[in-house]
Amino acid sequence: MLGNWMVTQPRRNAELTRRRILDAATREFAAKGLAGARVDAIARASRANKRMIYQYYGNKEGLYVAVLEATYARFRGRERTLRLAELDPVEAMRRLVLFNLDYCHAHPEFISILNNENLHRARHLKRAKSVPPLHATLTETIGAILERGGANGAFRSGIDPMRFYIALASLGYFYHSNRHTLSAIFRTDLARTATWRAYRDEAVAMVLRHLVPERGVDRPRGRGIK
Amino acid sequence: MLGNWMVTQPRRNAELTRRRILDAATREFAAKGLAGARVDAIARASRANKRMIYQYYGNKEGLYVAVLEATYARFRGRERTLRLAELDPVEAMRRLVLFNLDYCHAHPEFISILNNENLHRARHLKRAKSVPPLHATLTETIGAILERGGANGAFRSGIDPMRFYIALASLGYFYHSNRHTLSAIFRTDLARTATWRAYRDEAVAMVLRHLVPERGVDRPRGRGIK
Repeated sequence: MLGNWMVTQPRRNAELTRRRILDAATREFAAKGLAGARVDAIARASRANKRMIYQYYGNKEGLYVAVLEATYARFRGRERTLRLAELDPVEAMRRLVLFNLDYCHAHPEFISILNNENLHRARHLKRAKSVPPLHATLTETIGAILERGGANGAFRSGIDPMRFYIALASLGYFYHSNRHTLSAIFRTDLARTATWRAYRDEAVAMVLRHLVPERGVDRPRGRGIK
Repeated sequence: MLGNWMVTQPRRNAELTRRRILDAATREFAAKGLAGARVDAIARASRANKRMIYQYYGNKEGLYVAVLEATYARFRGRERTLRLAELDPVEAMRRLVLFNLDYCHAHPEFISILNNENLHRARHLKRAKSVPPLHATLTETIGAILERGGANGAFRSGIDPMRFYIALASLGYFYHSNRHTLSAIFRTDLARTATWRAYRDEAVAMVLRHLVPERGVDRPRGRGIK
């Protein structure tokens, strides 16, 4: 057992150091963007030295790509804990929308990092090879829920999983990414809990209503929306 | 007549110069943000001199506030040409959603400037006194359409105009503000016309479906969404 400990402990320390570096880098990139972030500051905040950071990640851009990968992996990893495939289709969709709304609310760094990477036209994200497979899984999961809901009559047919996902993701993202301008133009404070809660309920209802079969099209009674 | 011309012409020239400065400043701030924008570049692009810019706007921040005011005034001004108050409520809402989606599509500078101002936590927008009244008018207009639709049975009741507007605005904004990261993670190109058109149709349908009265709640037959 001691032998085993002696082999795994250094690996475990390296793993913890990498995680500390990534966490500190996430905060620094979220606060300052790629251009403004300083590797010195990341080294200080993670109690690692710069040489170690360069050894692991090559350079500041390499570290930034690793942060993008970790950011998406964390988001999608949390989403996977919802176990959507095991739920009733309507309940699965409700949880998916709520999760997206609440994640944007709880993780301002997620929004800052994505905003920043869009300024760079996703040039670095294209190097993050681990990210697209996470999203192929996501659209498959959504597609399967839509199909189950179609089969049991809860959802209408013909909804594209990616388009549907972009629409539902927009509802939580925009509220938070633009909360400062929206609060200013409407002379209100979107950060107020009551305001957020009321919006969140409305957003969930909007997404779920969109899935309800149209009478006269998917169901043979009543009239559909014209 | 000549006397009249002699009085109005200088005023008209000043007006045209101000507009050229604002247009050039909008492009420069959209491309580089407040921090990166150069008054020199704006002077060159607008064929005005820096002294004139400082005389009109005080300093770079004053010019940026004027750009924010012009950006919102242009957007809301175009929206007012839709004459929503004169239309059938369903048609009015369809036009409002389509207008929002298409404006985001046609005006990347609008999105860049709002993104940038959110980085600054809307500090400058709070100085733009002309902007909140434009949005009080907007929520009044939306409120009136919702009320007319409620009265004629086309819409359900209890929808808050501001929350509803934020949700509908998010659908076009996010697709465009995040098109680079979304294209990368889904291995697709959201700039393709067919992809955009299909999303746009879905977004319009989502907003309009949200307004349809629930059976069993607003209307006394069938069952509502649980």
